[in-house]
Amino acid sequence: MTATLRDLGEFELIRAITARFARGRDVLVGPGDDAAVLAAPDARVVVTTDLLLEGRHFRRDWSSGEDVGHKAAAQNLADVAAMGARPTGLFVGFAAPGDLTVDWALALADGLAAECARAGATVAGGDISSADSIMLGVTALGDLEGRAPVLRSGARPDDVVVLAGSVGRAEAGLALLTAGVDHDANAGWAGLVTAHRRPRPPYPLGPTLAAVGAHAMCDVSDGLVQDLGHIATASGVRIDLDPAALAADAPLRSAAAELGADPLDWVLTGGEDHALVACLPPSAGVPAGCERIGQVLPGTGVTLAGRPTVGRGGWNHFG
Amino acid sequence: MTATLRDLGEFELIRAITARFARGRDVLVGPGDDAAVLAAPDARVVVTTDLLLEGRHFRRDWSSGEDVGHKAAAQNLADVAAMGARPTGLFVGFAAPGDLTVDWALALADGLAAECARAGATVAGGDISSADSIMLGVTALGDLEGRAPVLRSGARPDDVVVLAGSVGRAEAGLALLTAGVDHDANAGWAGLVTAHRRPRPPYPLGPTLAAVGAHAMCDVSDGLVQDLGHIATASGVRIDLDPAALAADAPLRSAAAELGADPLDWVLTGGEDHALVACLPPSAGVPAGCERIGQVLPGTGVTLAGRPTVGRGGWNHFG
Repeated sequence: MTATLRDLGEFELIRAITARFARGRDVLVGPGDDAAVLAAPDARVVVTTDLLLEGRHFRRDWSSGEDVGHKAAAQNLADVAAMGARPTGLFVGFAAPGDLTVDWALALADGLAAECARAGATVAGGDISSADSIMLGVTALGDLEGRAPVLRSGARPDDVVVLAGSVGRAEAGLALLTAGVDHDANAGWAGLVTAHRRPRPPYPLGPTLAAVGAHAMCDVSDGLVQDLGHIATASGVRIDLDPAALAADAPLRSAAAELGADPLDWVLTGGEDHALVACLPPSAGVPAGCERIGQVLPGTGVTLAGRPTVGRGGWNHFG
Repeated sequence: MTATLRDLGEFELIRAITARFARGRDVLVGPGDDAAVLAAPDARVVVTTDLLLEGRHFRRDWSSGEDVGHKAAAQNLADVAAMGARPTGLFVGFAAPGDLTVDWALALADGLAAECARAGATVAGGDISSADSIMLGVTALGDLEGRAPVLRSGARPDDVVVLAGSVGRAEAGLALLTAGVDHDANAGWAGLVTAHRRPRPPYPLGPTLAAVGAHAMCDVSDGLVQDLGHIATASGVRIDLDPAALAADAPLRSAAAELGADPLDWVLTGGEDHALVACLPPSAGVPAGCERIGQVLPGTGVTLAGRPTVGRGGWNHFG
C-alpha cells in the first residue's frame, strides 16, 4: 500500500519534506523555528507571493508533483527576476488532502528544490495544512545587489522592447492537454506540454537586463499584450510589437493547425511561460539571450505593427 | 443587490483592496508591480508564511471578514515577533468564490490593515485568484534591528519561563461557538469568542524579550505544552510549568463549567491566542506585560509541577 499524508502525520511529513531542501547561502535560519531568517545584503528585499490551486492552476492528471513544484517555484522566482533581483529564498504553504500519497508530496518538494536551484535560491520555510484539494501559497524573495528595482512605470519613447524566454508555448501545451491530443506522438507538441508543466524562466537575464539599464520590465504571466499593456499604462507610452519577431515556430504552427487555433493568439495572449520582457534604452543593445520584439512610442496601449490589439486580452480572474 | 467579486472583476477588486492599505515606512515599492520592495535595514530579514482555509481555520458564519483579516495577520505577525523582530510587511494571497460579496473582501482588507497597524507593519503586496472557498496564504516579514534572532534551541537550565499574552481563551471561545452556546449573554464568554476571532498577540514584547536576552522564544499557536515541547526538544532541556501561574480566570472557569470541560486543558493545549512564551536568564527579570509561568530544568519534555503532561498534546494536521 502506498503511504498517505495521514499515515505519516504532519511532523514526519515536515521532516521528510525539509530533508529534500538544500540550505542556501542566503539562509541564516532555515525551516523549524517560528520563522526563517534570510540574508538581505542589499538592505532591501524583493518580495512576491502567489497562490496555486488544484483544478485552477494545475491538474494532477496533467502534471506530476514534480511538475507542480517546478511551476509553483518558477512563477514566483520569475517575478523576483523581473524586478532585476537575484532570487534568494522561497517559502511554501502547502495544503493537501490526508489521502494524498507521500510520494506526490515529496515529488512536489523535489520540483520546488530543483527549480529553486535553477534560480540560485533555496526553499527556506513553509507551512503545512490539511485541505480538500491541493493548494500552494508561494512567496519568493530576492536581493537587488545594489541596483534600483526595475518597475513597470519607467518605459520611455524610443526604448527597445526585448523578450527573454518564450511566449505562447505553455498556452499551446495547455490547449493540447485540454483537447486530449496524443502529444507524445509529436516531439514538438511534447515540448509544448512540457512548457506548460515546467516553465523555464530565464532568471539570470533579470539582473542582466537591470544592469544594462532597463527602464521597465515584467514577467509574462498573463499574456504579452496584457502584461505589456500594464507597462504601457504605468509608463504612459504606447508599445508597438513587431509581428515578424513574434512569428510562431514550427511546433506552435503544427499544434495550431491540429487544433484549428491561431498560433499568434497563443504568442500574444498566452501566459505562464514566465518570459521576461523589458524596455531598454537604444544605447543598451540587446543582451545575449534576448531578442528585439518591438519599440516604445508616444501614445497609449499595445499595438501590433501599428494596428490595435483589442480583443487580444489575457486572463482575468472572476472575469 | 449586493455586488460580488464577479461583478467587480479582478483588477477593480485589486484596486479597491489596495486602496485600504496605508503605505508603510518600510515599503519602498508597494502593490502593483511584479513584486514589492521592502526595507531590510538590518541586512537580514525574518520571514514566515501560513495558510488559512475556510472551514478549517475559520468559518464565515462564526467570523466576519474583518475578524478573518485580523486573525490571518495576527498569526503571522506573531511568528515574526517570536523571533524577536519588529514586523515590517505582510503579503497576502487571497482566493475566493466569484459570488463572495465585495463587502466581505473589503472587510477582510480592513481587518488585515488594522492588525498590521497594531504591529507597526503594513500590507505590501499580494495575489488574487478565484476558488471554490476562501483561502489565504499570508507571509509576514520583520527586521531584527541588530539583535540575534531568538530561536527555540537556546533554553538553558535555570532559565525562567515567561508568558506574554493569554492562552486558552481562543480555544474556549471556539468551544463556545462549536457548542452553539449563546455567548453574547455573558460578557466573559463574549470575550472568549472575541479571543478566537481576533487574537491579540503582544507584538512589542517580542523585541523586548529579545533585548533583555531571551535564550529561547516561540509563539503559542499549537498549545502551550506542545509549543514549549518544541523548545524543550530543540534545547535539550525540561520545562516545568507552575500550575498556580496558569490558573484559569473566571470566564474560562465559567465557560468550562457550562461545557463540562476542564479549563486547564484549554490553558495547556489551546492554540491560536498567539501569546509569546520565552526562556530568560534569571538575571533578566520579568519584563512588564509578562508573567513567570515556569522554569527550565535539566532533562526532557514538559512537566506540570513535576508531573508528566502526556496526553496534553496540541494540534496535529493529518493526525
